[in-house]
Amino acid sequence: MNDGVDRERGDSFMPRFDDKGLLTAIAIDSQTREVLMVAFMDAEALQRSRETGRAHFHSRSRGKLWLKGETSGHFLNIEEMRVDCDQDALVMLVRPDGPACHTGARSCFYRRVAGDRLERVEA
Amino acid sequence: MNDGVDRERGDSFMPRFDDKGLLTAIAIDSQTREVLMVAFMDAEALQRSRETGRAHFHSRSRGKLWLKGETSGHFLNIEEMRVDCDQDALVMLVRPDGPACHTGARSCFYRRVAGDRLERVEA
Repeated sequence: MNDGVDRERGDSFMPRFDDKGLLTAIAIDSQTREVLMVAFMDAEALQRSRETGRAHFHSRSRGKLWLKGETSGHFLNIEEMRVDCDQDALVMLVRPDGPACHTGARSCFYRRVAGDRLERVEA
Repeated sequence: MNDGVDRERGDSFMPRFDDKGLLTAIAIDSQTREVLMVAFMDAEALQRSRETGRAHFHSRSRGKLWLKGETSGHFLNIEEMRVDCDQDALVMLVRPDGPACHTGARSCFYRRVAGDRLERVEA
């Protein structure tokens, strides 16, 4: 079996973690289609996300499993999960229970690059 | 100066590359808001993207700069670039010149996870 071909064309879920055991996970608001946040999942975070329907990540800075909303109550409820061609990235369509960003913004992507400065984006 | 606070609250573009010199870059169709692809940029790829208005990435497998569309002609023309709270991820709103995925799909995220299988998503 050619794993590469099967990963791209097949119907088997074969997530591909990088050399640190991580893949990229993007949370999109299922209603507005806004990108809310991006983070990383290891196998445990992926498994917990699938089991519970709530987005879990692997915190690279803290080196541990992280249930998004654990502290704030702002969980990301997963409605659909998509995988990209080589299965090293996921898009989650989510229903957020509150602001996705720890700053209180609805999305972490609240600034646009304008030359060498950043401008606030009003969503 | 507290770099962390300034990165989150300030108006200075201070991209934060990880220990491999990379940040995550997500390409969104500016018209449909569909997630087209996700890849990584190093400082050179970011600089070239900003200079040319076309998305460049760093290929982790090939270990080199990669102009998306170099071979296919399917460039991603950047209309806006957004950065997240801690500035380690970018969202690019792009106008794609053709399918973003090397498989010919408009988006790399053409399959949804359904149990342990994948289902084709028709966009």
